[in-house]
Amino acid sequence: MSETPLLICGAGFKPEERDRLAGAFPAAFVNGPDEMGSIENGLRAGIKAIAYKGHKPFGAAEMDLFPQLGVIANYGVGYDAIDVDAASARSIAVTNTPDVLSDDVADIAVGLMIAQARSMVLGHAHVLTGRWAEQGEMPLNRKLSGSRVGIVGLGRIGREIADRLAAFKMDIHYHSRAEKETPGWTYHADVVGLAEAVDFLVIALVGGPETENYVSKAAIDALGPRGVVINISRGTTVDEAALLDALEQGRIAGAGLDVFLNEPNIDKRFLRLPNVVLQPHQGSGTVETRTAMAELQLENVACFLRGEPLKTPVN
Amino acid sequence: MSETPLLICGAGFKPEERDRLAGAFPAAFVNGPDEMGSIENGLRAGIKAIAYKGHKPFGAAEMDLFPQLGVIANYGVGYDAIDVDAASARSIAVTNTPDVLSDDVADIAVGLMIAQARSMVLGHAHVLTGRWAEQGEMPLNRKLSGSRVGIVGLGRIGREIADRLAAFKMDIHYHSRAEKETPGWTYHADVVGLAEAVDFLVIALVGGPETENYVSKAAIDALGPRGVVINISRGTTVDEAALLDALEQGRIAGAGLDVFLNEPNIDKRFLRLPNVVLQPHQGSGTVETRTAMAELQLENVACFLRGEPLKTPVN
Repeated sequence: MSETPLLICGAGFKPEERDRLAGAFPAAFVNGPDEMGSIENGLRAGIKAIAYKGHKPFGAAEMDLFPQLGVIANYGVGYDAIDVDAASARSIAVTNTPDVLSDDVADIAVGLMIAQARSMVLGHAHVLTGRWAEQGEMPLNRKLSGSRVGIVGLGRIGREIADRLAAFKMDIHYHSRAEKETPGWTYHADVVGLAEAVDFLVIALVGGPETENYVSKAAIDALGPRGVVINISRGTTVDEAALLDALEQGRIAGAGLDVFLNEPNIDKRFLRLPNVVLQPHQGSGTVETRTAMAELQLENVACFLRGEPLKTPVN
Repeated sequence: MSETPLLICGAGFKPEERDRLAGAFPAAFVNGPDEMGSIENGLRAGIKAIAYKGHKPFGAAEMDLFPQLGVIANYGVGYDAIDVDAASARSIAVTNTPDVLSDDVADIAVGLMIAQARSMVLGHAHVLTGRWAEQGEMPLNRKLSGSRVGIVGLGRIGREIADRLAAFKMDIHYHSRAEKETPGWTYHADVVGLAEAVDFLVIALVGGPETENYVSKAAIDALGPRGVVINISRGTTVDEAALLDALEQGRIAGAGLDVFLNEPNIDKRFLRLPNVVLQPHQGSGTVETRTAMAELQLENVACFLRGEPLKTPVN
């Protein structure tokens, strides 16, 4: 093994996460892929594994800086920042951290739906500001249980969301690349048809170029005035400009969003919208789950450096 | 039938609810039981049914003002404001509006749990105020799925809550007057033992004198520093002073509350607590459910005045 086989890349790593990685293997650190070019040659030549966290593009040019690189271990289930085709072409494995975060992300999706339908952010403010005592009840809101929901993308997370919503007696519709074994749920071959059939549209797609603007202006328009968009995937998966227009013009009823384009510098139009519940991309943001993600990332690095099979490869 | 057989009692009735009742039967109106004494004798003598909405005490003295009174139809599932024993002794039937609101109240209970565990009110503010862009991620919070929950009172609403939480893979414990047919769920004969066994304690009791301070200081203390109290029942069911002390002193982790003593003039100590999500008693506050509740109340009144069996009698 070279003297320093591991590069930790990402300003988003918490100190304890960096320490754990660096405690397991001799490691160097950079804030992002854009800093890789300034690593000195000797160090670069020895790097065999990169532990990555972040959303900045990690492409072929960066990979070519590391002649011995064998694995890019991503922190997170979504690895859309990494050019997996370029990695595969160079026999570089890519790993992610699936499953361990599905529960948390599904919880936030359901939380966004309840908070949006039942005006819970407004409700909290109604009590906190004293309006309840001064002005009485707040306006009635909207029943969630029993309503019609459409899940866009029935992967691991989409399935967790649907399983929870089934307990709310919701009529479950979904769209995915292929129909799945889902007794009682309704498959739609296209997302516009799905949106037409439901009131709540929950986006649980993977990110990346293939799903860019997948929930299109046409799909948003098909939702109609009772429609609510929930997005816990990536800001890229929905036509955000069309979503903002529809919300501002009242053509749909509202939204619950954990993800945006250009996070954390999101479009300021979101800040002026009523009926929208906003979260700071915290879907997997629990102590328990972030620890499990960090452990799985380290396991993948360790497996590679020890010559053992990877835990969760994606290519 | 007398000229005016129906008295509508309650400042909380919305105009459309009053209009629907008064459109069905000739009706008089008062704001609350305390105004009943000032109704003129001739009108009082003819009243056969009272449609009630509110939380002010409706006792024997008020009932005795109406010699022909045969039914008090309550708006809401909780009828703890009405002295049912006094009504029964006078052969006055009492009805409520069960079932139609169970879904909504259970939704708010689950919403309070997710919002509390996942810091969603803070998350919304983190985005809205620009702190996300300026200061980065908010602190990690806490995983809800898979945790241990205790339901206090496994009636209609408690059961709806438990059914939803089962889909979040929670370890479900409960306390009720008797053990129920609940495979996989754990029964506790007393509420302190229940609180010891769980992290989230969800109160779904009926109100009234029998459940006053049922969730006692001892139960709150037994929850411990990871404990969270969720209350969607009545403010009376928990020792509120003990709850406030425990929250202020950090002896439990937080709370999610839709109900309080002295609503809407609640204890101002609640307004200074972090980790507490507050709602203005809006458990059943959806357009769909309030309409269903008003319809069921009117049905009970109509059944009585037509001599038909009551829909949902409680005595």
